[in-house]
Amino acid sequence: MGLFMGLAEDILGGKRRAIAKAITLIDSDDGMGQELISALYPYTGNAHVVGITGPSGAGKSTLVEKIALHLRKTDTKVGIVAIDPTSHTTGGAILGDRIRMRALSLDREIFVRSLGTRGHTGGIAAKTKDVIRILDAAGKDVILVETVGAGQSEVAISESVHTSIVLEVPGLGDDIQAIKAGIFEIGDIFVVNKADRIGVENVMNELNIMLSMGEEQQWKPPVLKCTARDDQGIDKVMEAINQHREYLISSGKLLEITRESLRSELLDQVKDMILRKYLDHIDWQEFERLILQIEKKEIDPYHAAKLLSDP
Amino acid sequence: MGLFMGLAEDILGGKRRAIAKAITLIDSDDGMGQELISALYPYTGNAHVVGITGPSGAGKSTLVEKIALHLRKTDTKVGIVAIDPTSHTTGGAILGDRIRMRALSLDREIFVRSLGTRGHTGGIAAKTKDVIRILDAAGKDVILVETVGAGQSEVAISESVHTSIVLEVPGLGDDIQAIKAGIFEIGDIFVVNKADRIGVENVMNELNIMLSMGEEQQWKPPVLKCTARDDQGIDKVMEAINQHREYLISSGKLLEITRESLRSELLDQVKDMILRKYLDHIDWQEFERLILQIEKKEIDPYHAAKLLSDP
Repeated sequence: MGLFMGLAEDILGGKRRAIAKAITLIDSDDGMGQELISALYPYTGNAHVVGITGPSGAGKSTLVEKIALHLRKTDTKVGIVAIDPTSHTTGGAILGDRIRMRALSLDREIFVRSLGTRGHTGGIAAKTKDVIRILDAAGKDVILVETVGAGQSEVAISESVHTSIVLEVPGLGDDIQAIKAGIFEIGDIFVVNKADRIGVENVMNELNIMLSMGEEQQWKPPVLKCTARDDQGIDKVMEAINQHREYLISSGKLLEITRESLRSELLDQVKDMILRKYLDHIDWQEFERLILQIEKKEIDPYHAAKLLSDP
Repeated sequence: MGLFMGLAEDILGGKRRAIAKAITLIDSDDGMGQELISALYPYTGNAHVVGITGPSGAGKSTLVEKIALHLRKTDTKVGIVAIDPTSHTTGGAILGDRIRMRALSLDREIFVRSLGTRGHTGGIAAKTKDVIRILDAAGKDVILVETVGAGQSEVAISESVHTSIVLEVPGLGDDIQAIKAGIFEIGDIFVVNKADRIGVENVMNELNIMLSMGEEQQWKPPVLKCTARDDQGIDKVMEAINQHREYLISSGKLLEITRESLRSELLDQVKDMILRKYLDHIDWQEFERLILQIEKKEIDPYHAAKLLSDP
């Protein structure tokens, strides 16, 4: 703990620079942040985490911005994490988003940060979870997690989220795009943005039909519309978020999903440690010898793996 | 080997029913297919594997169909694997695609099969690899792998593919959609479909600009256009596939990517075996005790994982 004690204290005090430094530590992916997360862990578990996902072009950033501003009206402290939909080799960032975010973060009680998406699905989800913990420990009441609706990553990240908003938009050529990528099941609230466009009722109808086809659940996800740019319909979204939060608490579901998320996190961490330990001791010369044998069809990959895993 | 010897022989003889049965075995995901893949392994490595990926609505299935029909003109045997973009809990399938595929498979030398996408990214990629091996062992000369361009899965699957075609289309609201999900880097050939639509030149220009920004490579990915539905421009696509194949062979790159793919497969299989062995012996009572302690903030997940992984 010693190394990060000062940093941890500053985070608990809500200092912006400390939060930024801690997130950079997590994002740099060298495992250095683990001690810090351990030190902060006792102070986490208070924030409500809201995920906003949907196809690119749906207006996620705008909705996130409006939700944040509405929350500020009641003096709620807000953290925003945007999972940056940039390519995994070029590593760039979308300038427009960054600029918009900077404007938003002029409010001292809104902390905004983009996270790169380099690395595998599980890695991104683990990083996101750690960043949520930092913001949580720093006293943010609501944490908004924005992700591009591309499938596996969102489903993994949704484990750290209490309320998932799935954003749709009319006229993307493929009305119910997100649904095909497995996003549909994670939605607690569906919002059709750009409600001033033609086709908004169609998208809402499609969503309602799809929802009616699913299994009956205690929580019936509402389908709302808004025009985030013009601040139209945001009140209804806020109401739905609050209702979902109340449902989670009163039904005991919040405890349940938190526990389930902890289980999967603990298992992932254990697996990670087991593999690290094993890979530290793997005989790479033997590994390469086996690759050559596989190429000559003297052995197949499955049996080669058996030899390597069972010394 | 014993159990699947008859099945393996029938696959090597190219029997359709045997191929179908084997793929079902792999798709059912119970690990039973491993023996079969081991038996077939010595007879693999002959097919050229072509991936076709892109956003939904880009016309992937139509392009795949046309490529298959063109290949049949020169008596090339064709296998088609479509990674089904269905939701991971509802498990449905897109009827239109299925019907189209059935029409295609009236040709006895075209074998078509959809694969579900249930399970994690790595699992889908491993399954796809095994299905490719079955079709390869069954004597297919070219195997077409169709995936929806949703990110992580495609990048993982692209490891089993020799030539990756990235399909784009004008007017999806977000012209260079696929690029954001990390698909751009895997493209060996870019094709803009629905070339009769407005905006095709814009998309081609954007792709060319993005390609010119990347590092200089030995293979310069061509940017082509076609209207697959009307069989326009498919000749150029076929030419590009052949040129890329020749490049891979003459440059030694084919050996290189095959070896790299084997390395990552072997490592994944080893990791899988290590984890399975470990999880068979995990103390789940201790695991649940630690979960309760984590909830009470008496310990954090990282240190709990250390206790579990280091008995």
